[in-house]
Amino acid sequence: MSKNLTKRAEDYSKWYNELVVKADLAENSAVRGCMVIKPYGYAIWEKMQAELDKMFKATGHQNAYFPLFVPKSLFEAEEKNAEGFAKECAVVTHYRLQNDPDNEGKLRVDPDAKLEEELVVRPTSEAIIWNTYKGWIQSYRDLPILINQWANVVRWEMRTRLFLRTAEFLWQEGHTAHATEAEAIAETEQMNTVYADFAENFMAIPVIKGVKTESERFAGAIDTHCIEALMQDGKALQAGTSHFLGQNFAKAFDVKFTNKEGKQDHVWATSWGVSTRLMGALIMTHSDDQGLVLPPNLAPNQVVIVPIYRSDEQFEAIKEVVSKVKSDLEAKNITVKFDDRDTFRPGAKFAQHELQGVPLRIAIGPKDLENGTVELARRDTLTKEVVSIEGIEDRISDLLKTIQEDLFNKAQTFRDNHITEVEDFETFKTILETKTGFVSAHWDGTAETENKIKELTKATIRCIPYDSKIEEGNCIYTGNTSKQRVLFAKAY
Amino acid sequence: MSKNLTKRAEDYSKWYNELVVKADLAENSAVRGCMVIKPYGYAIWEKMQAELDKMFKATGHQNAYFPLFVPKSLFEAEEKNAEGFAKECAVVTHYRLQNDPDNEGKLRVDPDAKLEEELVVRPTSEAIIWNTYKGWIQSYRDLPILINQWANVVRWEMRTRLFLRTAEFLWQEGHTAHATEAEAIAETEQMNTVYADFAENFMAIPVIKGVKTESERFAGAIDTHCIEALMQDGKALQAGTSHFLGQNFAKAFDVKFTNKEGKQDHVWATSWGVSTRLMGALIMTHSDDQGLVLPPNLAPNQVVIVPIYRSDEQFEAIKEVVSKVKSDLEAKNITVKFDDRDTFRPGAKFAQHELQGVPLRIAIGPKDLENGTVELARRDTLTKEVVSIEGIEDRISDLLKTIQEDLFNKAQTFRDNHITEVEDFETFKTILETKTGFVSAHWDGTAETENKIKELTKATIRCIPYDSKIEEGNCIYTGNTSKQRVLFAKAY
Repeated sequence: MSKNLTKRAEDYSKWYNELVVKADLAENSAVRGCMVIKPYGYAIWEKMQAELDKMFKATGHQNAYFPLFVPKSLFEAEEKNAEGFAKECAVVTHYRLQNDPDNEGKLRVDPDAKLEEELVVRPTSEAIIWNTYKGWIQSYRDLPILINQWANVVRWEMRTRLFLRTAEFLWQEGHTAHATEAEAIAETEQMNTVYADFAENFMAIPVIKGVKTESERFAGAIDTHCIEALMQDGKALQAGTSHFLGQNFAKAFDVKFTNKEGKQDHVWATSWGVSTRLMGALIMTHSDDQGLVLPPNLAPNQVVIVPIYRSDEQFEAIKEVVSKVKSDLEAKNITVKFDDRDTFRPGAKFAQHELQGVPLRIAIGPKDLENGTVELARRDTLTKEVVSIEGIEDRISDLLKTIQEDLFNKAQTFRDNHITEVEDFETFKTILETKTGFVSAHWDGTAETENKIKELTKATIRCIPYDSKIEEGNCIYTGNTSKQRVLFAKAY
Repeated sequence: MSKNLTKRAEDYSKWYNELVVKADLAENSAVRGCMVIKPYGYAIWEKMQAELDKMFKATGHQNAYFPLFVPKSLFEAEEKNAEGFAKECAVVTHYRLQNDPDNEGKLRVDPDAKLEEELVVRPTSEAIIWNTYKGWIQSYRDLPILINQWANVVRWEMRTRLFLRTAEFLWQEGHTAHATEAEAIAETEQMNTVYADFAENFMAIPVIKGVKTESERFAGAIDTHCIEALMQDGKALQAGTSHFLGQNFAKAFDVKFTNKEGKQDHVWATSWGVSTRLMGALIMTHSDDQGLVLPPNLAPNQVVIVPIYRSDEQFEAIKEVVSKVKSDLEAKNITVKFDDRDTFRPGAKFAQHELQGVPLRIAIGPKDLENGTVELARRDTLTKEVVSIEGIEDRISDLLKTIQEDLFNKAQTFRDNHITEVEDFETFKTILETKTGFVSAHWDGTAETENKIKELTKATIRCIPYDSKIEEGNCIYTGNTSKQRVLFAKAY
């Protein structure tokens, strides 16, 4: 199976596209730009969801559900946002199909079933949610509102790629309302940190926390915080954003509250989200020319056991041993799949599990039974060793932790080796073309320079890192003074 | 709070509508027919989802995700279904909004951004899924496919009611593919039984398992199995359906496989679903004039603790005791909320928790501290008793089980008392108008009679129960021979 996978060095983009399909994660559908997330891909997404949901609840958030549709007029109320992606969206104009009188067996849109007001399939839910919050908020006693929604959203993208950019995608969007600016800012930062912790501890992806420049900010936001990851091809990927919305939405939707002093004030807001795009980041960070590599914390199956046998007796004997190993592992909360399909040979199973990134593979045959051993193979390093069955559950438990750490460390080393400080524009361009990765450079703070650099190099400012220190410098492009380095990169 | 709730006897329908809103479960949105599911309502839905998901996985199913949109032509391929509700649906015709050149500050649909083919927001996913399965199935080795999807769907209903009938609703839809007819039928029955078990053991709602008549069947199905519940107003509610689809969809979408004998055959299919409608059933089965009554197995908070105090010292002393009680309860997997808000008085808290159906309420004041007691109140019976704190975790654990059983038994007694066998049409009509509930009667098996009865009485055949025994009889309407009683009722 993996034999057919294009090599990363040959064509990284093709490698990615093939991998997503061959590893049974997702595929394109009959609807332009929309994907089908297959069971194996969805199982990984479910693990992400479960963990994120736990983190959201631990920070005091509750889930709720708001309508899929947003009346056009609500976008008008919220003009700034409508200037952005809200325009490239799916618009519902009619509410009925009927048999086509001119074409037997065909359907047509009933011309008499036109909606009075068009409905937009939500590209994000600020408008409908703030229109709703208006009814929920009267006094400071009603605040804060800390709500998250798991939902599908649609943005009419012209060029799509599985997980990375699709017309419909799955995501979560947090929408909070606060009595004070300070509280809303703290929430914005808190959620960006939650995202960073999730990316690093579960996805094993090192990320840089920072703040976007005005040009890269969400249209309705005062400040957009983000986490930025680096893919193996040296391109950056924005993995999550958390917006401090100030009072913009409260003003657009007239949401006021009576504060403790009895005065009326507009509510302060945040919104924050991550999406199925994270699947793309996960795949591109760890996988190799043999296929998917999954961190144990997100692998649907952490261990797969493949029996090797010629006779039914051998199979029965193996099954007995496996059954004990499996339940010992499960007692340690390790997910194990016993691949006892008789429609595939061991070699084909090995190839499939390698392609699908199962962190650890156990193979067990008649000789192992005699010796009280199994063959244990690590997906990330592609190494194998014969180990004793005695105490294997502890060994595997430790090994899964090791793999999780090793994957993070490997990605971090790669990422750290791909942050280059440069002082002049020529070097800047050379680094972007040859070494790739993040380039840390001084910038004069203007959108004009930012755009010019983007035009000339395709690199954008990914973020102003939280830990970027204040230092005197000169903009690599204009030479004007700068107080701080920012991170540039070509990005997904 | 509950003081303002309309009484069931006065106006059952109004009582329901008010209760849903006052108990903070859901509300109508700015989008006609679409609801906002509020955090408290969503928390109950999440508990349902979690339990159902576990049951689906225990029976071998995996989750996946398919596109929100279905191209119009796929509905044409699947004509029979399109004849049904697929016609009253949301149709996406355009993919862009733009500034209206004639109206500053307004948006309009960009007339140049018309889709070549209209997209229907899924009313159900058979069409898009079977069009996808075609690419997944070649041989019997690819079968069965056992997939479930959690999703939102849209049906353009003219008259909507929160949870019971909304334009957009949340549901799960299982779509399975099998090599044999027998296997698909077994799956259909299995999932109907899963639904019945869930309804009875978690929702505490007794249900009747049965099969629909042809008129009441899902358009694309050979057989529709269902579970039917009875609400307190004597109207039936279909709580879940499981369809045996035969080879209809495989034929419509040309999905063939090579069987073990090497021959080509069409694949056999099932689909099955439950939706946020279950929330309506849950509310209407157990709640009373004081508000919501929740079975402990689905209550977001099974126990609420309200402190009663005058001074800070009293509060601190209570808090210390509560902290121990809470952790003892949580150690038994009981969810407990300590309502320590200082913005509300105990009376207001009591009213709110009563309205929101928290199964058990503990009140604890200074006198209780002296005596080592608390006041324990049951929501279902509205009874209170003073009990010792000593061993309270066991008492509560037992009591929650008792409440769960009592709610089921109460609903079952009511339901059983509302199944009336009748032999003639006059009695039939009288029962429907006076006693209400299910009427068990002979029917001649024709759609014509069924329609006539519906026209005259508004009652429909809810199902032919699995346990309806074969017996000679005469149709209550035509007098023609009948082999079996069926269950009639007015229904939601």
